[in-house]
This record gives sequence, C-alpha cells and structure tokens, in this order.
Amino acid sequence: MGKAKISNAIIRRLPRYRRYLGHLQQTKELTKVSSNELSELMGYTASQIRQDLNTFGKFGHQGYGYEIKELLKEINSILGLDREYKTVIVGCGHLGQAITNYTYYYKIGFKIIGLFDVNPDIVGTTINGVKVSNVSELKDFVKENEVVIGVICVNRENAQSVADALVEGGVKGIWNFAPIDLDIDKKVALESVHLSDSLHALTFMINNMDE
Amino acid sequence: MGKAKISNAIIRRLPRYRRYLGHLQQTKELTKVSSNELSELMGYTASQIRQDLNTFGKFGHQGYGYEIKELLKEINSILGLDREYKTVIVGCGHLGQAITNYTYYYKIGFKIIGLFDVNPDIVGTTINGVKVSNVSELKDFVKENEVVIGVICVNRENAQSVADALVEGGVKGIWNFAPIDLDIDKKVALESVHLSDSLHALTFMINNMDE
Repeated sequence: MGKAKISNAIIRRLPRYRRYLGHLQQTKELTKVSSNELSELMGYTASQIRQDLNTFGKFGHQGYGYEIKELLKEINSILGLDREYKTVIVGCGHLGQAITNYTYYYKIGFKIIGLFDVNPDIVGTTINGVKVSNVSELKDFVKENEVVIGVICVNRENAQSVADALVEGGVKGIWNFAPIDLDIDKKVALESVHLSDSLHALTFMINNMDE
Repeated sequence: MGKAKISNAIIRRLPRYRRYLGHLQQTKELTKVSSNELSELMGYTASQIRQDLNTFGKFGHQGYGYEIKELLKEINSILGLDREYKTVIVGCGHLGQAITNYTYYYKIGFKIIGLFDVNPDIVGTTINGVKVSNVSELKDFVKENEVVIGVICVNRENAQSVADALVEGGVKGIWNFAPIDLDIDKKVALESVHLSDSLHALTFMINNMDE
C-alpha cells in the first residue's frame, strides 16, 4: 500500500465504509456485498466505490462482490484501529464526560488514562475509574505516560494553551472540540469537530429543501 | 441566486469561510480581505475561493478584495442564520447538556424551547431555564409549538424512534449525534455528527504523518 496514494477525500469516506460494512455484518449477518449494493446503501456510485476500495489492494472479485470480514479487517488496519491509543481528556464538563462515556461505552481502542480540569470541584474526583487531575500536571503526565491522543473539551479561550501543553508533552494527535482553529506543530495530527459547521449545514438544508 | 447551483461541497465550505471571516473581523479588526490572504489562512487555493464566493454574486473587486462585513452578511443569509430556530433537545445526558450549554453560551439563533428525556431523575428538572419533559410528550410538543429543529442525543438503540416522533411532529431538520444512520422522510433535513468517523480520521493521520 502506497501511503501517498490515499487522498484526504478517501480518508473521509473510509470510516463511513467501515460503519456500513459493520452494520451489514452485524444486523444483516451478511458475509459479502457487491459495489452495487453498497452504492444503493451509501449513495456513492458503484464505480466510485470500486475505485476507493481498489486503492488498498484487490478485494473485489468480478461478479462476486467483497468479502465483508476481509475488507473490514483491512480498513481497520488502514485507519489504525488494530492498536490501542493511550488517551487523555482535557476539560471534564458535560462534553468531556460525554466523550469519556462514549469511548468507554463503545470500547473502541481508546484507553482513557488521564482526565484533566481546572475546576476544584472536579479535580480529585473519579470518572469511570479515572482520576481527574489539575491541568497544570498535563504536560508532565503526557510525557511520563507516553500519551498518544489528547482530546480538548475546554472552551475557546483555553484551547490553545491546552494544545501547547499536549504537543510539548509529546502527543501524536489532538481531537479538538473547542470552536477555534488551533495553531500546532505540523508533525502532530489535528482533527477538529466544529459543531457550528455541522449546525450551519443543517440550517442551509432546512432553508433549501425541495417542497 | 439560483439555489440549484450551490453544491454540497460548497455548503460544507461556507460555514468554514464564515468562521475565518468572523475571526478576521473580530480579532484582527479587518474590513476587507483578498482571496490570496484567505487562501494562506484556510488552505484552499485563491482560485477555489474566488470560484466559491462568486457563486453567490459579485462580492470581490479586482485588486481590492472582499468586504468582510458584506460577505459575512450574505453567507449568514445563505446559511439561514438570519432567523431563529425553535429547537428541542432529546436526551439530556452529558452530550445533550453540552449541546444545550453550547447553543445557550454562543447565542447563535437556536432557541431551545424543550428538553426531553426518559430518566425519571431528570424529567421535571430545569436546565438553563427550560423544563425537561418525558419523551412520550415529544411528538405533541413539537406539533403544538411548531418546533423546527430536533437534536438527537440519545443512544443508538432509541435514536430511530425519537427521529420518527420528531418527523411526525413536523420538524424541518434533525441534528443527530447517535452513532446510527437514521432512516427518515426525505423532506426533512438530516445532519449527523458521526464522532467515530472523525476519531478514525485522526487515527489514520496519526499513523501516516511524515516523520
């Protein structure tokens, strides 16, 4: 697999393939699927799907379709989901706790080993078995425990300084929920969830639906 | 402005333009910006930016740039952000409360008029001045109050039935946070925030960063 060949657009589609394939496997108990069937489900053209999935090697067989299990295994490997990530969450308000519960509930390879906040009412308490520490200890904790992912659930004003501490501590990736475009070292992967972008796409659609 | 001309890709870029323009206006106190400056900031090519912004009319002036205020006003209008949306949130766990606080804090045109849950410990309480009702009352409430947007913050298992109640009640759009692809009437706008897709894009990037 040539890394350079995988475009940003495909990276955005891969997790979606993974969701649909997993759904077919779990709820329909299917073992194989054709590009036409996937097209019907997912709204991409069959030709687009064949092109996407061919990027990673030959999974499809003419007139037969894709082995779901084999394809899922390869997609998981490409996405890096065949390993575990030591993760910390910074900001234990409702959003931080929602993310903590989410990774805990779905057991998806993200091991939350540290929680951080500045609120004295929360620091020292325990959430899902993990102690909440003061954010002043963040950088050293990340360094000592070789944390891979830092999740930022603090407000706009504090997000950049939290990102700086995470990067200085040595994380490989940041999952940012603060409504700000962070300025970080290009060597660290950054994925921001901009809720407002999503909400504004919704309002656009509401105002432009065909009657 | 021809509605049909606006592609899905542009809809996804518009909220991002809005964020960057707002940032320039607020923190840099700029009144105009060139496509080259925007390109530098946002990572799109200047030609892409000119093409996108020309879709809505002539805002740019050769050798002068864009009037930020004028452009923002038009983008807000296109995105439907020049009006208010009556909104309900279903599921008042951490995620639902995070979304409630978010819209409350940023005062962004989404008026939360109802909160719903099934948990008897939460039903009857008040969050940011809004009473939490039982989800059994959802459909009638939506209908009687002409709710426009329903936000789904319940778990995967209950998301479809909540969506059904919202659609039967008459919402125009659904903002879905449950990790499921909902099956709803095509006349209702649906925007799903799939946190796992975002997280998996991050793990891909972590494993494919240039050293």
